Amino acid sequence: MERITATYFIETPYELEKAAAVLAGEQSSGTFVAVPGETEELKQRFAARVEAITPLETVNEPAIPGAVSAKGQYHRAMINVSWSIENFGYNLPTMVSTLQGNLYEITQFTGLKLMDLEVPASFAAHYKGPRFGIDGCRKLTGVEGRPLIGTIIKPSIGMTPEQTAALVKTLAEAGIDFIKDDELLSASANSSFENRVDAVMRVINDHADKTGKKVMYAFNISDEIDSMLARYDKIVAAGGTCAMVSLNSVGLAGAKKICDQGQLAIHGHRNGWGMLNRHPLLGIEFPAYQKLWRLAGVDQIHVNGIENKFWESDDSVVKSIDACLKPMLGGYSVLPVVSSGQWGGQAPETYRRTQTTDLLYMAGGGIMAHPDGPTGGVVALNQAWEAAVNGLSVEEAAAQYPEFSKSVEKFGSKK
Amino acid sequence: MERITATYFIETPYELEKAAAVLAGEQSSGTFVAVPGETEELKQRFAARVEAITPLETVNEPAIPGAVSAKGQYHRAMINVSWSIENFGYNLPTMVSTLQGNLYEITQFTGLKLMDLEVPASFAAHYKGPRFGIDGCRKLTGVEGRPLIGTIIKPSIGMTPEQTAALVKTLAEAGIDFIKDDELLSASANSSFENRVDAVMRVINDHADKTGKKVMYAFNISDEIDSMLARYDKIVAAGGTCAMVSLNSVGLAGAKKICDQGQLAIHGHRNGWGMLNRHPLLGIEFPAYQKLWRLAGVDQIHVNGIENKFWESDDSVVKSIDACLKPMLGGYSVLPVVSSGQWGGQAPETYRRTQTTDLLYMAGGGIMAHPDGPTGGVVALNQAWEAAVNGLSVEEAAAQYPEFSKSVEKFGSKK
Repeated sequence: MERITATYFIETPYELEKAAAVLAGEQSSGTFVAVPGETEELKQRFAARVEAITPLETVNEPAIPGAVSAKGQYHRAMINVSWSIENFGYNLPTMVSTLQGNLYEITQFTGLKLMDLEVPASFAAHYKGPRFGIDGCRKLTGVEGRPLIGTIIKPSIGMTPEQTAALVKTLAEAGIDFIKDDELLSASANSSFENRVDAVMRVINDHADKTGKKVMYAFNISDEIDSMLARYDKIVAAGGTCAMVSLNSVGLAGAKKICDQGQLAIHGHRNGWGMLNRHPLLGIEFPAYQKLWRLAGVDQIHVNGIENKFWESDDSVVKSIDACLKPMLGGYSVLPVVSSGQWGGQAPETYRRTQTTDLLYMAGGGIMAHPDGPTGGVVALNQAWEAAVNGLSVEEAAAQYPEFSKSVEKFGSKK
Repeated sequence: MERITATYFIETPYELEKAAAVLAGEQSSGTFVAVPGETEELKQRFAARVEAITPLETVNEPAIPGAVSAKGQYHRAMINVSWSIENFGYNLPTMVSTLQGNLYEITQFTGLKLMDLEVPASFAAHYKGPRFGIDGCRKLTGVEGRPLIGTIIKPSIGMTPEQTAALVKTLAEAGIDFIKDDELLSASANSSFENRVDAVMRVINDHADKTGKKVMYAFNISDEIDSMLARYDKIVAAGGTCAMVSLNSVGLAGAKKICDQGQLAIHGHRNGWGMLNRHPLLGIEFPAYQKLWRLAGVDQIHVNGIENKFWESDDSVVKSIDACLKPMLGGYSVLPVVSSGQWGGQAPETYRRTQTTDLLYMAGGGIMAHPDGPTGGVVALNQAWEAAVNGLSVEEAAAQYPEFSKSVEKFGSKK
């Protein structure tokens, strides 16, 4: 019988084997005393199984509070645990409850993080996954051989649909591939969703008629299910190609329902991610997280960026991009969205470390605040990526490309 | 204009005022450089506003990694921040993205927890909230003047629908008010959802025909939207009164869609909660969390229990029960679900500290493994609560009630 496997980074005041056994018991047939009806055969069929324990260091202070070791020793390990597909079938929310659920609350752990998960081949028959992915997003935008260049409408909130549309016009003429709403804006008092779609798509469709290039705009549809579906239909009717969903705020069931509509590329925003990930021994790591959303069908997912303005290390960002680009069940292609403090100066290092241009490379101020305006900003970003692919350093690129040189002057000192 | 207010516990390597201003900026109009179009008028209308800063201690080590203080000082405070309702209107996912969102990732904080939130009066016109709440759940089960006594089907997973139904029969005859699926079981290879509903409801309906008492069974419908809706309809058609949703795994949009159906009481399971809450300076506290789910319409929500088997302190459990019982916008009644290692011995302390019987008091092994079997277990729990309300201690109650005395003998030493 096929099994789902999860890898955890754990810390425990108990013996590792005992703690792992409790984890497995809690997430299959556990209760605090044995009960009638729990036969050995039943246990074996549905029991979670500890597949491997790899001991790591022992420390003297617990990573998170709530349990105390009498000996003052907390043992760390990577462990692998598996469940039969018979336990929950093809049900992502219940899979999440099984792989995570109450685990973070049990006193056998002073740290627990879901690092990765593996689903069996039969999942491919049940989950269509991203309908567009990297190739689909490239086709929709007409971009080949380089990253999609994108930007976020800023200020995050407060512009009218007309102001937004005017900015979209400027950006479209500047050659941008992708634009998104900020996650703070779905419908504000001065920018209803419908009016924004109308105003923005008028500009985008006009530009497409003239140039053949349709800018992808990720309208933030995040809301209740019915509202999201209505907004989705509005985008489709207006000729749009993308909708944005705040994954953590909407949740797995809602996001999948949207992805299942299949007509728009879904931009998966991971705001709230820091709550799930910033602590090294609590929550979930991105390799596991992105698999859930790929199964749900998200086409684009945020991975932060090199030298970002958030807390995340470059190593972690690179690991996230690698996770997205690794095929899942032979496919489930998802486009990594690089953002946060990006202005082009990070392109050489991003390419050096990932060796890919299969990225949606987002810059906010890096485009909007370029000394030559947004046009200069978009040109500079494309120059930065051309230079990156050609192996140039930031300094070499600045010497060669005047617009990028101005970016370096303006943004390069902010490091 | 009405405003939404959030209270945060923060820790920062910066001056408190500066860090609070960054928080407000990030969650309204922030970007890393000023951009054209950001007028002062626009800023004021949509800007988040720091309402109050209450300084707390300064520490020498950051609570979570990702930012370093040059001086080795990390300042803690409670801060209040508000947003105009004009920013996002009545949209719970976007409210969550605004109140939480990227905040956990910014380097101005080495700790951030959303402690509470206040929504303005107009929310009452937009959110129906729990359709049943405490009074509705009492009516559905015919229980007055004492807690609803409930249990969980164990083993969590592996029983057939017939085995489950047989256990339900035993429990119904024992006088139980409420039974739930474990969060690990939605549909397993040997217990399809439909067959389980049929088998269980046959027993419950028979028992109701005979006795006039309908046991509330929370079938775990957690899954994708369409599947949840189909399962919901199945329960309604079979005469059931309750559906369970794993709130964190399903998400806010999906859970609200289910609550909006309005025909069943919704049992909100918070599995995964530890990930969001166990660290003292990361995530969200229960007073804020439960408000989101009450707005979505959840009728029952888990709060853990006194002397639970998880890491949570009794103080925290009491605070959670108090939060549930405090009216929100004058209502939005939600029934606190007390569980985890409960066997009746915690009833006196639970009552002493909360002074309420408006609880769904759940015991698993505490009922199933009672020396006299489940009947003895249910009787003992009712005795424990009668004793608790009468101000008896565990010892006094054991002297008076034989079934409870056996519980004390079996479970009392496990402390």
